[in-house]
Amino acid sequence: MHAPQTIPADLADVTAAILSRVRASNPRVHCITNAVAQHFTANVLLAAGAIPSMTVAPEEVGEFVARADALLVNLGTFDRERRAASEIAIARAGQTGRPWVLDPVFVDRSAPRTAFAKTLAARRPAVVRLNAAEFSALFDAAPDDGALCKVAGDTAGVVALTGATDQVSDGTRVLRIANGDPLMGRVTAMGCAGAALVAACLAVEPDRLAATAAALLAFAVAGEVAAGRARGPGSFAVEIVDALYGLDRETLRARARVT
Amino acid sequence: MHAPQTIPADLADVTAAILSRVRASNPRVHCITNAVAQHFTANVLLAAGAIPSMTVAPEEVGEFVARADALLVNLGTFDRERRAASEIAIARAGQTGRPWVLDPVFVDRSAPRTAFAKTLAARRPAVVRLNAAEFSALFDAAPDDGALCKVAGDTAGVVALTGATDQVSDGTRVLRIANGDPLMGRVTAMGCAGAALVAACLAVEPDRLAATAAALLAFAVAGEVAAGRARGPGSFAVEIVDALYGLDRETLRARARVT
Amino acid sequence: MHAPQTIPADLADVTAAILSRVRASNPRVHCITNAVAQHFTANVLLAAGAIPSMTVAPEEVGEFVARADALLVNLGTFDRERRAASEIAIARAGQTGRPWVLDPVFVDRSAPRTAFAKTLAARRPAVVRLNAAEFSALFDAAPDDGALCKVAGDTAGVVALTGATDQVSDGTRVLRIANGDPLMGRVTAMGCAGAALVAACLAVEPDRLAATAAALLAFAVAGEVAAGRARGPGSFAVEIVDALYGLDRETLRARARVT
Repeated sequence: MHAPQTIPADLADVTAAILSRVRASNPRVHCITNAVAQHFTANVLLAAGAIPSMTVAPEEVGEFVARADALLVNLGTFDRERRAASEIAIARAGQTGRPWVLDPVFVDRSAPRTAFAKTLAARRPAVVRLNAAEFSALFDAAPDDGALCKVAGDTAGVVALTGATDQVSDGTRVLRIANGDPLMGRVTAMGCAGAALVAACLAVEPDRLAATAAALLAFAVAGEVAAGRARGPGSFAVEIVDALYGLDRETLRARARVT
Repeated sequence: MHAPQTIPADLADVTAAILSRVRASNPRVHCITNAVAQHFTANVLLAAGAIPSMTVAPEEVGEFVARADALLVNLGTFDRERRAASEIAIARAGQTGRPWVLDPVFVDRSAPRTAFAKTLAARRPAVVRLNAAEFSALFDAAPDDGALCKVAGDTAGVVALTGATDQVSDGTRVLRIANGDPLMGRVTAMGCAGAALVAACLAVEPDRLAATAAALLAFAVAGEVAAGRARGPGSFAVEIVDALYGLDRETLRARARVT
Repeated sequence: MHAPQTIPADLADVTAAILSRVRASNPRVHCITNAVAQHFTANVLLAAGAIPSMTVAPEEVGEFVARADALLVNLGTFDRERRAASEIAIARAGQTGRPWVLDPVFVDRSAPRTAFAKTLAARRPAVVRLNAAEFSALFDAAPDDGALCKVAGDTAGVVALTGATDQVSDGTRVLRIANGDPLMGRVTAMGCAGAALVAACLAVEPDRLAATAAALLAFAVAGEVAAGRARGPGSFAVEIVDALYGLDRETLRARARVT
């Protein structure tokens, strides 16, 4: 069902299958994420069926990661404690073979953040998720197909470039997911929560391209369903959580625009 | 109305009376709680009629606690500042005779957290709220009726074991509250907010068993009302705040399942 | 349209014009704000059309402020990192000529906070927003019209005293905005988000009295619209974001009660 060679044609079915596994197995996802995103990220993970934990204390983050199924490292809050916790968490994820996702938020806005993100990107994240400005700052290249493939090859992982159309590359191919809604840009932490969902899918799906594309497709389709029910960004943030919780194969099939 | 000897038979009425006092007197509840739970916890307290404060700065937490009517210490974010703040806050609550609630979140997931929680549990919290895994880690015992009563006796306080059925013991008796909805487990910080509500009730009700059972019953019944109106965990988190705000004696009487 | 001498008569029109400019130009607002308020504040700014950033790391806050159009300094979380970040951010805002808003939350509740707020108030914020108790603690005076004008004159800025009726003074005049709804007091971070909205309006409107009054009027009218749709404080917090997003000139004209 989820053999990567059949993506993108059956990405809706692959996504439905991966969501089912998240709902059935309730993977633990440890998130080192920014203070603004923590609450919404935890609720998105819970709605999907995953179990979030969020500690950033260096004394104990290693134990949490050791008992988790996947890790998210988001640089949105760039304090000393989170930097130390990130180092420890990534080392532990490496030891236990757990996949981890790097989300270098706002790496284009401050030089210390760029430098730190570059050291993390070199430590083999399973997936790097970022927008075009962040891609340019982190990889010193315009985010075209060639650069996406090169970066995915260099990091030996998947690169997910999010925007009006999401693009996902494993170094060989570039998938495009043209779903979503502009209201997703009017609610804070949408991208951060989407990256956490990538980690949840990686916890149950070894094919990293499939897991990443599934998470982005699921969240973008949930956004479309939510937009159809919302009056503005306040109700949209509520509705997208409900839509993700109730997302089914039929809705994914009807809405997926993947090439 | 709220004499403990008549609980559980009249817990719905006792709860309605305690909620009325919270709404009328607007007790101040100082919360040292985790970063994920702060926002939702503040909104649950405000919906109930209490006034939250949330500073964790060691320089000023003592002054906040001195002017508060009850204190919550939640270990969900286990950083140095919050540990220092907890020590100061608990000492001040002891000096001023203010009740405090210990919520040892995830104490089963990391050894430093367990060790710290044990020192706090020995400092006479009015109430310890935790789930079964946290109970086992903190008290080295399976959470049966005998262990609940023993722990309540040892800490000279009330133990609230939350789960599908909540259990509350003062060392002599064990009350069971079989209300609530599975969606409460699909929204982050529900337990944390429930523990804050216990603190709000302790601020207006000296009988700690009654105050604790009232808070848990009110929140669980609000959860049932919310589940009847919600499409998923996103809307559920909104509806439970509205339901708590509007909760009345008739709804409590109609729904309470207490033994 | 927004000449200050015609306020208050045309404040509804002035507000509609300022909101249009925020929506069209998407100003960047850097917020050093408390942990409880960060998420809601970011969503209110996004709903209004502004772009929030929230880092408090001293290493990089200067770079964020240098690239922002306005700054908010909120003292609700009074930790060492935020104090250091505030000093750096205010210095940078001064160098680049960016307006900044001081929100001295809970300055009446702890002496170290009062002392720190006094040093910040002396550094020429464009606007100080606070409630009556905070005014008295910070300026050692009862918040009557004379004191408002004197403080505005002394700080060479605007003072916004929020409450059932908001009062705004530039040292010469005192505007009164009698809009809003009691539910605004039952949701955490409403005042904090309102102060962030003041910063967003300052980013596009050089007349500080007009910008401040516009932000307070817009948020208060959004609160009235939300109250008409809400069942309690949970849905109110959702509806006010939607209402701000959709707020138009007709609604402002129909509801504004400004003297």
